[in-house]
Amino acid sequence: MSLDYDKFVLFGDSITQYGSNETRGYSIQPALQELYVRKLDVLNRGFSGYNSRHGRIILPKIIEAENTKSTRVKLMTIFWGTNDAVETFQHVDIKEYEQNIDFMIKLAKSNDIKVIVLGPALHDDYTYTKRYEQGLVVFPDTAKNSVNGEYSEVAKKVATQNCVPFVDLWTLFLEYGGWKNGIDPDLINAKDYPKIKELLVDGVHFNPQGYRIVFDGIQKAIKTYYPDLYYEKVPDHLPLWRSLIDKELDDEELEEFLLTSKLHQTVTK
Amino acid sequence: MSLDYDKFVLFGDSITQYGSNETRGYSIQPALQELYVRKLDVLNRGFSGYNSRHGRIILPKIIEAENTKSTRVKLMTIFWGTNDAVETFQHVDIKEYEQNIDFMIKLAKSNDIKVIVLGPALHDDYTYTKRYEQGLVVFPDTAKNSVNGEYSEVAKKVATQNCVPFVDLWTLFLEYGGWKNGIDPDLINAKDYPKIKELLVDGVHFNPQGYRIVFDGIQKAIKTYYPDLYYEKVPDHLPLWRSLIDKELDDEELEEFLLTSKLHQTVTK
Repeated sequence: MSLDYDKFVLFGDSITQYGSNETRGYSIQPALQELYVRKLDVLNRGFSGYNSRHGRIILPKIIEAENTKSTRVKLMTIFWGTNDAVETFQHVDIKEYEQNIDFMIKLAKSNDIKVIVLGPALHDDYTYTKRYEQGLVVFPDTAKNSVNGEYSEVAKKVATQNCVPFVDLWTLFLEYGGWKNGIDPDLINAKDYPKIKELLVDGVHFNPQGYRIVFDGIQKAIKTYYPDLYYEKVPDHLPLWRSLIDKELDDEELEEFLLTSKLHQTVTK
Repeated sequence: MSLDYDKFVLFGDSITQYGSNETRGYSIQPALQELYVRKLDVLNRGFSGYNSRHGRIILPKIIEAENTKSTRVKLMTIFWGTNDAVETFQHVDIKEYEQNIDFMIKLAKSNDIKVIVLGPALHDDYTYTKRYEQGLVVFPDTAKNSVNGEYSEVAKKVATQNCVPFVDLWTLFLEYGGWKNGIDPDLINAKDYPKIKELLVDGVHFNPQGYRIVFDGIQKAIKTYYPDLYYEKVPDHLPLWRSLIDKELDDEELEEFLLTSKLHQTVTK
């Protein structure tokens, strides 16, 4: 029935959760929802502060809840690692991180969900530490770009082994700043490289430019790996209004026109 | 089960559909989703070009699709009238418009959905006509602020009779521009009153300031009429991460902590 919307689930930690924040004028959930409006519901399943160990526990329940008798999760981002890589209670050993991501990819795939994996991006210790000194965050900074890079590489490896696309934010962020050649990644921070502020708002979470890189990466992954789910290929729910111009329909005919999926297919293609 | 998200459905025409557009940096679906993240999914059920006659036909199917065995539509905006009030093929007589809105409110209420009704806002014939002359829209301008006002009053009357809140965009837009006292509303357009451009992007659809007025109106309506569904009162899905600090949990205990709703309730209240 044409009013059952399938789903595009964004699954991850706070960077995913804040992906519905409009505060700074651009974020990932609305950017994707705009593309898929009338096609798929883009659902935010971000859980601030969680790591891949939590993700592994909750994913089966998320899939169970969203795959109903009549609607399915078609696409899913799996975006963990930023919390795993720090040294607070949130830390997850890189070996376990690898197993967790592998588990999540396989679980989603076995439910016929098209997966896009993302790993941790760059970090900005200068801004983070300033916020810590101001009492705005609980833990002192233990994140390092080199460690984020290791977790990112592991996520990439697991994605590749499972034949699903990986959006390499760590490298894309590096490239955005032009920092690729020979700079020690642990030296990249907002004090010496102000361009990192365009990517990161508080040292960890993303500014609009960071989410734009996420958006471009996701779009490219869908177009390349899952072309049938590229937004232009997904049919709209219900006929577009132009198909109604100059039609004189009584109530019954109108109902048939709107709700009969055969007619609907003809109209939206 | 705590990973079944209930829904906040935005139901209407193109002004609702474009309510997921991020193009101009602010829109209504992400603004509401930011508030209700981890609480309710805010779903866009906007259908560009449709009128209340179409809405009446499709609403039963939308409710049927979204009210599943385990999840419910808790809140719904019913926002029609802008297309009904014009003189193209989209026109719906004001008497039928009244019956359609009444039908939709009663249907939603009978499904235990908390309804918020919105009626047509102001129109800007100057900008619209310029776009028509440039070939950017199909029909010449037949909208009038005085007619929008009549449809708005009817929507307000039906909402009041059904004891559900009404967001009076027509009046709120007037007040925003300071045009309340004695100005013929049909004379309000972007040529003589540039402030209307802050509200309307193309004569019909909303700029961020227009959607901000929608947002404020919806928030006020929920707080006043449905305080249990005001975002601060709706529990989060899954415990907040701070409740995990300094807990040493093995895998089984962690799973119980995350997924047992009794524990979850304790943590999020």
